[in-house]
Formats: sequence, structure tokens, C-alpha cells
Amino acid sequence: MTQSVTISEVGPRDGLQSVDRVMATAAKKAWIKAEAEAGVGEIEVGSFVPSKLLPQMADTAEIVAFAKTIANLDVVALVPNLKGAERAIAEGVDKMSIPFSMSETHSINNVRKDHSAMIAEIKAIADLVAKQPEASRPHFEVGLSTAFGCTMEGPVADDQIVRLAEAAMNAGVAEVGLSDTTGYANPAQVSRLVRKVKRAIGDDKLNTLHLHNTRGLGLANVVAGLEEGITTFDASLGGLGGCPFAPGASGNIVTEDLVFMLEAMGISTGIDLDKLLKVRDIVAEALPGEPLYGFTPDAGLPLGFQKVAA
Amino acid sequence: MTQSVTISEVGPRDGLQSVDRVMATAAKKAWIKAEAEAGVGEIEVGSFVPSKLLPQMADTAEIVAFAKTIANLDVVALVPNLKGAERAIAEGVDKMSIPFSMSETHSINNVRKDHSAMIAEIKAIADLVAKQPEASRPHFEVGLSTAFGCTMEGPVADDQIVRLAEAAMNAGVAEVGLSDTTGYANPAQVSRLVRKVKRAIGDDKLNTLHLHNTRGLGLANVVAGLEEGITTFDASLGGLGGCPFAPGASGNIVTEDLVFMLEAMGISTGIDLDKLLKVRDIVAEALPGEPLYGFTPDAGLPLGFQKVAA
Repeated sequence: MTQSVTISEVGPRDGLQSVDRVMATAAKKAWIKAEAEAGVGEIEVGSFVPSKLLPQMADTAEIVAFAKTIANLDVVALVPNLKGAERAIAEGVDKMSIPFSMSETHSINNVRKDHSAMIAEIKAIADLVAKQPEASRPHFEVGLSTAFGCTMEGPVADDQIVRLAEAAMNAGVAEVGLSDTTGYANPAQVSRLVRKVKRAIGDDKLNTLHLHNTRGLGLANVVAGLEEGITTFDASLGGLGGCPFAPGASGNIVTEDLVFMLEAMGISTGIDLDKLLKVRDIVAEALPGEPLYGFTPDAGLPLGFQKVAA
Repeated sequence: MTQSVTISEVGPRDGLQSVDRVMATAAKKAWIKAEAEAGVGEIEVGSFVPSKLLPQMADTAEIVAFAKTIANLDVVALVPNLKGAERAIAEGVDKMSIPFSMSETHSINNVRKDHSAMIAEIKAIADLVAKQPEASRPHFEVGLSTAFGCTMEGPVADDQIVRLAEAAMNAGVAEVGLSDTTGYANPAQVSRLVRKVKRAIGDDKLNTLHLHNTRGLGLANVVAGLEEGITTFDASLGGLGGCPFAPGASGNIVTEDLVFMLEAMGISTGIDLDKLLKVRDIVAEALPGEPLYGFTPDAGLPLGFQKVAA
């Protein structure tokens, strides 16, 4: 099993886009800065979507510019299409990610594109990325969303996911990740699907899992992913964002609990848990009353707990 | 990995003993009956402790007598000592469990017995069990509590746990279980400790894990246990009981989420999830305002979800 793991904080993007209120730009900056100072090395800071659709993300360009000034931080943005990718490249992101829904029904409903239109869009972005000078060329990856099942279609066949992962790689992306958008995944499925996709596209082309804790299985799914060689996990501080279709149910896996689990297992995250726990105050103050999840923040660290030496 | 798992519902004992209010005897009976009807095959229904110490458990004899009338149900009681074991045997329990704290400080504080006094007590009970006629002889097991760390001592050495597990087996118990009383366990530790104890006392002498979800790692620890051949998991409906030292933090792992995870993984529990979810109403009505935990009850089952064919 891997000795160290990258945690990619997605709260400022995936968390905030599920919160109705718009977090003030200054608060976003304070959050990102504090979390980077706690040792988080990768943060998805926003999304280059039209601000009419997601006003919460309207300041993404300013946030990216700010995050780029922080040392030792990989700045990630979500892009929904070529237009978003052009803006992300102009702002100099380190990494761009495009969601590609494995359920065609979901894809059509969500972005009005079927699978072949999505592959064409991904190829157009990959071609644009390839044209950038090497020094400023962002890492471009595809998040295979609804990979573990869809609220409209139900289960999605493994073969379909493998085929679409191959198509994305052929379109020129650097790597793919698997996303449990709906919180449907279970550990056996995570093991099976990670193994199948890695076998098809190469062991080093699937490194990231984006998991939700909708049914409480988030960290159990992390364990299954670790055992299959996954080295990057998305997570959200305080599990921010909840779950749109299940009030009271958590959305993203909680960064604090994930860091505790990994460090307790002897897997280095490079993150200082005490500092990380204090970052919650920034979010709580900026979004009063917004529910923050996580068990470790309530329970505290075990007596005698030691983090892994970096 | 195992194809089927036994879930031992401990809510009527471990859950209720952490709730200040006393649940009415009739409500306990309704709960136990409904959960057995949902397919739960083992329930820890109470504890033979002095009712002065735990008034919540004062009706344990009546509850055992009632539970014994339910078909296909193994009726378990906790016994703190020889006196409790005598009462449990008189009531005809199918299985008795005694907690044996791996932290000597915790043992002395909790039951005023050091490790050698506990081993003597366990031996006295095992001798009493051996004298019973075979047809009515209960299964007697030891729960190795605070095995993953203690709130007073901090970490407990693996070697100490292995040595005390061997001592319990030598005293004549049928098997031992590992208990994460404090919610300190992590998946790597579960794997390591299960393997060490099994190696020392025999692969078939450690079958049960009692896990808490205090820091959100409960189901992740289940995955680690499954991979090491554990076949019985304790769990509490609605995670009832909370956690005494961390208000708002969950105690026992939640039966509903555990059943969902196992069935989704293709591991049969014999439990009907829809029926199980309805049992929450009985508990909620009997203990108004008591927090019930669990993610699956809020989120519901995934579209297209199918339980494992029994």
C-alpha cells in the first residue's frame, strides 16, 4: 500500500457550489490560504462556469490568481467545456478537470451533451492544452462522474465505464479519475472498477477517487481505493455542501476524518491535523448556520495519537 | 472474503445503557421482535448488572425470557462477573459475553479488578458454563475491550492484547472478540491486530469485532475486518447511545449503514433493509428526541439496489 497520499481539497468548488449563499471572496481566500498552510498541497478552488448558472463561482478567476501566489499549492479548477478551459488556461491553473458523466441520461440532462459530443469537447480541450507552451501547460484530467451509479439510470455497466475511460484517454487527456457523484459506491465495487479501468488504460492513468459519504461508506471506499493503488482522494472540509437530494445527508467525504484515518494508518498526508481543524472556524464564520460534518472534529484526537513523520 | 456475515444488534444493551432514560419494557420487546422479523439473527438484549448501577437494564431477565420465544434468534446478554453469569444461565441465554479491558487502568477504574483478577473471574465463569448440561450450555465469549487504545492509557501494546487473549482462551472461553470501546481503531490496526490474535489463538477463535464510529472510521474498519476473515460485527440501530465523552459524536456503528454496505458488496446478511429501516420508528417513539444516527436512512437506497439473494 502507498506510503503517502495526496488530498485534494474540493470544498471551495464542490462544497460551495452546493451551498445557496455566495461565500465572500475574502473568506474564500482566507480558507484556501489557511488550508494550504496546514499542509494541503492541492485545492480545487473554483469552476469556470457562467456566473449566471453558478453565482457562487463568479470570482473563480480572482481566486485562481490569488491561489497561484501560495507556495507549494497545486491550483485546480473545474471546467465544464472548451470555453471554460480557455478561461482556466488564461488564468494559469496548474490542473483542470472536466466532469464526464458515465450515465448518458445524466450527461444529457446536466450539460445537454451525449457521450460522443462530450468526447468531442474533451478532445478539443486536449488539443488546446497540447498547444500551450510546456512551462505553462496545465495538467488536464477527466472525472468519470456517476461512475458508481446514477440517480436517473441506476447502475452503469462496468464495460461502459471502461470504454469511455479509454475514449477519454484516446482524446488526449493526461489521466482519468472515478467519481461517486451519487454516493452509490461500495468497497467491493470500488476495488473492481479501479482494477478494470487501470487494466484498460494503464496503472498510472487512474490515480484519483472522488467519493461522497451520502450513505456513510466514504472512508470504507477510501480503504478499498488505497488497496488498489489510488494515491489522490478528493475531500471537502467539514463535508461542506451536503447532498442536494437528501437533506441532512453528507456530500463529499470529510477532509478532517480522511486525514485522521490516513495518518492513523501510517500513511503520510503532509497535513497538520490540529491546524486543519482550526480552518473550520473560517468556514463557519463565513457561512453561519451552514452544517459542517465530520466526527473527528467533535471527538478530538485519540490520547497518544501521533501523525506520520513527513 | 466471506459470503455471509452475522450482524449482532447491540442497541438494546450497549445503546440503551448509554441513554439516561429507561426504555419501557414493552418498547424493548417490540424493538427486539421487529428487528428479528427483519432478519437480524443475533441480539444482545441486556446486561445482568445490578439494577442500582444501570437501571436501564433492570428488566433484562424479562427481556431474555421474551426474546427466547422468538424463532431463529440467538439471545445474547452481557455479564460483568460470575454473579451475572449465574443469572444469565438461569434465564437460559444462548450466548454470554464478558468485557475484559486490555487497559489495566481502565479495568481497575471500571470494574475494580486488575488483569489477574479478571482472568480468575473469567475462569470461574468458564468452569460454571462447563458444568451445565450440553443442551442448555450457553456459548461464552470474552470481549477484549479498549483493544485499540484507551482514553486513560492511550495505545495498548499488541503483545499485551495477544497475551491476554491467550490467557482468556486458557481460562476456558469459547472465543474472544476485539472491541474498539473508545473509537480509536483504524483499518491498518484492525488488520494487524486481528491477524496477530488469530495467529496466537487459532483462526476460528476470533470471529467478532465490536466497532464504534466515534471518528467516522467504523465502516472502514469493518472492511479491514472482513478482509481478515471476521464474520460477526456488532452494530446498533440508529447508532443508539452516542458517545459519552463526545456529545454529538456517534457511538456504535450504525446497523442500517452496515447492512447497506455489506449487501451492496454482495455479502449476505439475511436482513431486509426496508423492514430494518422501519424499526427506527419504534425506537424514535419510545425515546422521543434521542438522536438516531445513520446516513442510509436519510439518503434512502440507490436506484436499482438489490439485496443479496439469501
